[in-house]
Amino acid sequence: MSREKKIFGFAGLGLMGGSFARAIRVVSGNTGGQWLRADSILALDTNPRTLQSALESGIIDEGFPPERACEMLRRCDFVFICLYPQDAIDFARKHREDFKTGAIVTDISGVKTAITSEFPALFRPDVDFICGHPMAGSEKEGFAASDWNIFKGRNYILMPLPANQPENVRFFKDLMWKIGFTRITETTAGEHDRKIAFTSQLCHVIASALVESAEDAEITAFGGGSFEDLTRIAMINAPLWTELFLANKQNLLSHIAAFETALLKMKNYIEEDNETALVRTLEQVREKRTAMMRRESFPHQKEFSTK
Amino acid sequence: MSREKKIFGFAGLGLMGGSFARAIRVVSGNTGGQWLRADSILALDTNPRTLQSALESGIIDEGFPPERACEMLRRCDFVFICLYPQDAIDFARKHREDFKTGAIVTDISGVKTAITSEFPALFRPDVDFICGHPMAGSEKEGFAASDWNIFKGRNYILMPLPANQPENVRFFKDLMWKIGFTRITETTAGEHDRKIAFTSQLCHVIASALVESAEDAEITAFGGGSFEDLTRIAMINAPLWTELFLANKQNLLSHIAAFETALLKMKNYIEEDNETALVRTLEQVREKRTAMMRRESFPHQKEFSTK
Repeated sequence: MSREKKIFGFAGLGLMGGSFARAIRVVSGNTGGQWLRADSILALDTNPRTLQSALESGIIDEGFPPERACEMLRRCDFVFICLYPQDAIDFARKHREDFKTGAIVTDISGVKTAITSEFPALFRPDVDFICGHPMAGSEKEGFAASDWNIFKGRNYILMPLPANQPENVRFFKDLMWKIGFTRITETTAGEHDRKIAFTSQLCHVIASALVESAEDAEITAFGGGSFEDLTRIAMINAPLWTELFLANKQNLLSHIAAFETALLKMKNYIEEDNETALVRTLEQVREKRTAMMRRESFPHQKEFSTK
Repeated sequence: MSREKKIFGFAGLGLMGGSFARAIRVVSGNTGGQWLRADSILALDTNPRTLQSALESGIIDEGFPPERACEMLRRCDFVFICLYPQDAIDFARKHREDFKTGAIVTDISGVKTAITSEFPALFRPDVDFICGHPMAGSEKEGFAASDWNIFKGRNYILMPLPANQPENVRFFKDLMWKIGFTRITETTAGEHDRKIAFTSQLCHVIASALVESAEDAEITAFGGGSFEDLTRIAMINAPLWTELFLANKQNLLSHIAAFETALLKMKNYIEEDNETALVRTLEQVREKRTAMMRRESFPHQKEFSTK
């Protein structure tokens, strides 16, 4: 796909769907339609006011209520399913026969083995599902908070499937670069879920437990920035994150256990006044985290193909 | 104290000492010497190159090696002890007889009961020790990283002592406002240590345990910002933080225990697939953290006296 494919469809126009729709509009405009021609951007949402607002601001060209999903899907060359993880799976299953032949479909869920394991039941062989995870978001929710800048400088995890058309994967990667992601890492859905349970879900569990263990909200008068940094992500969408925690349960539980062990070790050192072990641990941690920062600063931009 | 007191002395010209020295220079300059006349800024440091660099950049007027500490202290109207916590206590004890009569002395330690409990042995009755904790810092260290902007918008915790001269406390508070702190909270050393063990030391223990439990440094390719935010503070000065952890041991251990309980509760909910309890917990946490943010955004600027 590239120039000849031109109708984009969004199933769900919340924070993520809205932000991707804005991004598609901008990338299409920036390239003068040369690289990407988004002739039409269609969107499906349960909230008519969201569709109205997206139409009025020129982000989408047509809005559809859920009961007209088939009609929309039949026209789309590229579909972004931007729903909660289980809703995305249910949507794909329900509309398996409605996607256009040759359409590229992707979703945004933060857990991937669920969708890939049910694969043949969700997509027809003539539909190319590209499995990816845009690692971007906001503590704000909904279309009103959507902003394509949320993708700038972020990581994108791509999990190519054996059935994917290589030219579609290439196009998709280039699109993600143009949208603003600065590192695209390729892996499998299983590896993704295991690693994401650490970098994302475990971090949210820790931040939430930390806020929960705070005696009162007045504690921030004693904050030096650390507590604020650790707990900003505790302002999360409760139903969505509950779903992510449970969908990735085994991975998450094993990371919680490893974290508890590391915490217990430090607690014991403190209890025993073991100064030497504490200094050594903190030095090793600093070194490890500094190495991570170097990796943060030099994303694999060389992976960017400009075709 | 105010206009007539004019010689400032710094014991230790690292990140904090250097930043405060810069701030004093700027505040003195900004007020045209009307509000604050820093006629001379003197500093004591074990590293002659640090003193040289501070002299050359015009931050200090005279540098002193540790063996000339008495000479410097006898001249100073205002002394900032900017050393590690135990070193600050040892310094005060050693130089008890060297401070100038009527001098205001303060320090920067993040733990306070140690210094206040040894009080009469550390300062003479004619020296006014103002007990405070500037909640500012950086993961960088040393004079080269010093910058008075680190104080802007931060919290200052003031722990007035019965012996303090009210006019000195008033002057000191105004000085902290002018330096850039935007919230000054008054409390006792005991309360400070208990709360700081939560907002600061516990957060550093958690961040360190999280980095320790990461399987490798490559994990950041799977980072969506949460992991980075939670662990940036893990790049800490190992000996300093070991000292802080151990100096505030009992408070810290009790907060670690409370955090472990909150974490265990969430882990159990995940293990049991208890969706209802997870959603409820995350909603309560979000509400609590949002209330904290409101307190972050509206510092008690009304406490600022402009005299």
